[in-house]
Order: sequence, then C-alpha cells, then structure tokens
Amino acid sequence: MTEGIGRVAVIGLGLIGGSFAAASRASGIVSHVTGYAPGSDGDAALALGHVDSVSASIARAVADADLVVVATPVTVVDAVFAAIAPALPAKAIVTDCASTKLTVVASARRHLGDAFDRYVPGHPIAGSERSGPAAASANLFKGRPWLFCPVNDAQRLHLPVLQVLVERFGARADVIDTDQHDAVFAEYSHAPHAIVFALCLAVARGPWSGKLTELAGAGLRDTTRIGASSPALWADILLDNAANSERSMARFDDALDQIRAAVQTGDRDQLIHLFDQASDWRASLSTVPASPAVATAGRAATDP
Amino acid sequence: MTEGIGRVAVIGLGLIGGSFAAASRASGIVSHVTGYAPGSDGDAALALGHVDSVSASIARAVADADLVVVATPVTVVDAVFAAIAPALPAKAIVTDCASTKLTVVASARRHLGDAFDRYVPGHPIAGSERSGPAAASANLFKGRPWLFCPVNDAQRLHLPVLQVLVERFGARADVIDTDQHDAVFAEYSHAPHAIVFALCLAVARGPWSGKLTELAGAGLRDTTRIGASSPALWADILLDNAANSERSMARFDDALDQIRAAVQTGDRDQLIHLFDQASDWRASLSTVPASPAVATAGRAATDP
Repeated sequence: MTEGIGRVAVIGLGLIGGSFAAASRASGIVSHVTGYAPGSDGDAALALGHVDSVSASIARAVADADLVVVATPVTVVDAVFAAIAPALPAKAIVTDCASTKLTVVASARRHLGDAFDRYVPGHPIAGSERSGPAAASANLFKGRPWLFCPVNDAQRLHLPVLQVLVERFGARADVIDTDQHDAVFAEYSHAPHAIVFALCLAVARGPWSGKLTELAGAGLRDTTRIGASSPALWADILLDNAANSERSMARFDDALDQIRAAVQTGDRDQLIHLFDQASDWRASLSTVPASPAVATAGRAATDP
Repeated sequence: MTEGIGRVAVIGLGLIGGSFAAASRASGIVSHVTGYAPGSDGDAALALGHVDSVSASIARAVADADLVVVATPVTVVDAVFAAIAPALPAKAIVTDCASTKLTVVASARRHLGDAFDRYVPGHPIAGSERSGPAAASANLFKGRPWLFCPVNDAQRLHLPVLQVLVERFGARADVIDTDQHDAVFAEYSHAPHAIVFALCLAVARGPWSGKLTELAGAGLRDTTRIGASSPALWADILLDNAANSERSMARFDDALDQIRAAVQTGDRDQLIHLFDQASDWRASLSTVPASPAVATAGRAATDP
C-alpha cells in the first residue's frame, strides 16, 4: 500500500461506482479493479472498460481486495456491509459513497466487526442527471469535493490512503463530522428536494396541470428542476435522514406561514422585511464561488 | 392610425418601459416616442436613445399621444391611471405591462372613464435579472409571448393596433382572460416566488446560514435563484394577486404536509407515490419547448 493502493473492489457499478472504478483504473496507483453489480451493470461496466474484471458475488469481489468501495443506493448499504463482512481480507480498507452518513455508519458498526476501524465513511459531491454505467466517467470527480467522515482515530489513520486516491481522481478531499454532514445536507439538499417535489405535486394536482404550460417561465423551470430527480432514490435519502430533514422542513414551514400571514393581512412592510432577509441570503450564496463540483453536484438524480 | 401607430407615450422608463420605447422607435411604424419617469430614468432613457423626448409630467407626456403605455411597478399603476385620465386625447389607446391584471383593470375602470373602452390590459412575458433604463433594449421582447386581456368588445376592437406593434417588436401576441391570467401566474410564478423566498428565509435563519456554503450544490442554487428577486416588487405582486396566490400556496402546503407525514411515519410507498406524481409533472414541463421568452421570463427581478 505504500507504493500504491493495490486491488480495488467496487460494489455497485452505476454512475458513482462505475466512475470510481474507471477513475481507479486511470489513477496509475491501482493494480486491479474488480466490480460487482446486480443485473446487467457488471457486464456493461466491463464492456465499457471501467473495471478489469467483474465478480460473480460480493464475497468474491472483496476476497482479495485492498480497498472495498460501496457505491450502491443508500437502502442497500446495510445489506452490502453484512455481505462483505465475512469475506473481507484482514487489512482491507472500506469506504462508501452514500449521501447520508449517520445510518450508514450505524450499519457499518453493526456488521463490520473489527473492520469498522478500517472503514472510512465517504461522500463524493458529484453526479449527473444521467445514471448507470454508461454515464460513468473517470472524470466525474474532477474538481469536486469528496467528504470523509471518520468517527474514531483508527478510521482517521486510514484517511490518507483515500485522500491520495481521490486526489488522483481530481477531487478535493475534505473531512467533516457525520452529524454535521447529515444536518447540512438535509438543509442544503434533502429538505429542498422534498419542498420542490411538493411544489411539483401541487401544480400537478392543481387546475393548470397541463394547461398554458408555455407560460411557465425560467423561474419555475429552475425552481423545479430537481423535481425531475429519481422518486425512489430521494424517498430513501429523506427516510434515511428523516430527523434532520424534518427539522429543516419545519423551519421552512414556519417561514412560509409568516409569508402567507403577511399576504393575507396585507402587511406590506412585514412581507418586504421577510423577503429582504431571504434575498440577502440568496445574494450571499452567489458570492461563494461555485466550483465545478458545486456547480453540478446538486443536479445528480443519481447522487448516492 | 391606419398607416402607423403615430405618437407613443411611455410612462415609466425602467427595463420594460425603456424597452417598449426603444422597440417602438425601432418599429418603423411609430412617429414619435416620448417618455415620463421620476428621478433620473427619463434623462438616462433619452441619453440612451430609447425615447425621442422626455416629458416633464405625466399630463404633458400623454397630451398628444395616440398610444399610452403604462410600464410602472404594479403599485403605481392606479395613481398613473388617475393622472393620465384628465389629459388623455379623445382617441388615444391605453395599455399597461403589469404582471397582474385584475386589480389593474379595476383601477382602469375606476379612473379612465370613457377611455376604459380604449384600454387594452397587457403583459409582456419578458424580463431580465437587470433593471433600469440601462438594461432596456429594443430586442427584449423578441420571440416572447405578449398577453392581452381585453374585458369587453370595445377593448377588443383596439387589440389589432397593439398586436401589430408588439409583433413588430418580435413578440407573439396572445389573448387570455383576466381571471385565468392572474390564476395561472399565481400558480406558475407568484406562489413559487413566495415559496422560494420562504426557503431562502428558512436557510438564512437556520444553523447553517453562512456556514459550509460551498456544499450548496447546483440543486439549491437553481431552486433558490428567483429568491434574489426584488423584495418590494414581489411583495407588491403577491399582495396584488393575494387570493390566487394564497390558493396556490395552500395547495402546496397540503402537498408538503403529505410528504412530511410520509417521511415521519416512514411510509416509503406513499413517499414514492407522491414523488412519482411530482416527477411526472416536471418531466412533462420539459416537453413543452422553452421559447426564448419562456427560457428567461421568470428570471425577471424587474418583470412588472
């Protein structure tokens, strides 16, 4: 491991897993990449050259791995940890790519045994509106943040290996506390997805659904863009990060209630006061440079 | 008027009024364009060549006009109608550019007397994130819808003159009922602005305001883009279209309540069911071709 990463096993070969595999092959510091995925994703990833080989089972994939990467939907991570645990070599490092961290870490703690100390929770902030191995690319992570959330000192010892690798991918490695990770993504991504789904749902049920749609301007189109994201994926993310997302949604609900009350009572001063705070925050968001990562990360229908 | 529009008076010389004036000058069917605006906008519009002359008062501007265009913020329209009424030539046609129609039509009915029958309510679906005469352009309306809302047959008789003019501007003239106009814009624009302001306000007040902002991805940036719009302008639009906007916001609130309930009870099937409806609607929106109009109209911080 001092001269390179050795053998990498990627579980899940969709957009993120396929890209991790492809970027590993391109990194120059990985000797072999094997992958496992259900259905046809494995063969597709092999045909596309993302992996050196595909394995017939999770146990076979991880059997001689130096690094195991779990890149499945968040709902499957628990079962994958259970499946890799008995087959994991004694020194293999494990990471994942899920967009929530608390329940994933709990799963790892439950299933990985001693290997929990060689597990480093991870989250590449990258994605695309496309999904599957065909959308995967060795370049997906270039310029994008890659968050790691080690929860003990043993895990922190394994961080450098992953930092070296993802920086080879062109990503910017960063460390963040798991609680903070899930709360900030609830606020910046998970609750906003629920709110946008609610807006789309309300319009879909309303009297104008399918009528005069040509009058829907760029405002509505931009506002609702993430409403086209995968329903199942986002249901699972919200359920996985329910408490944090509910806190963010409750704050939103309070804010909307105040705005509706001001509209109903015709309180123009209060409405402008509220909108000023909102607009100031949005203006401040624009001052934070959108890296290539930040500029596209939220678009990921498939961001795990 | 058979050979051309004659003399045009534009009240308000910001983005929309300045563009109307400039497009009129460029149309080849207008003999003279005068404008009135408070503050420095008049001189700026004159210096930029948007108008042939500026007038010292509303009464002077309209005194020998064949067409009077009211292009002020919606809150000022009532006072402008009151000011133009006594000075209006006997055959002058009047239109406006406000993004709500019911209260504007009521103002016209209250103030314009006989001239109400020569008034054609209008709404160009055009804008820009910039504002003021410096942002105005003769090309602003190219390819964009221009809605007219005549409320009686007399008004309908004057529609062709305006259709000819705005089609010279490159716009697509269309006719829509006033009730329908305000309800559909509440649904597609006014309520979504309130919802996005609420989201921005909630994040501004939340624990992450100003922290880890670099993790806010394109999803949040797109979703909240219209939250940077003018607070006063949007407060006035919402207050002007309060009943319709409240109906749209109530439908949204019901949808979000259902989503929150499904998250709280862990009802994955229900959550996916709701998100499917939302996602299907958003996908259908993408199938409606975004004309240049539709592609940018919602971005208007200054869309009147």
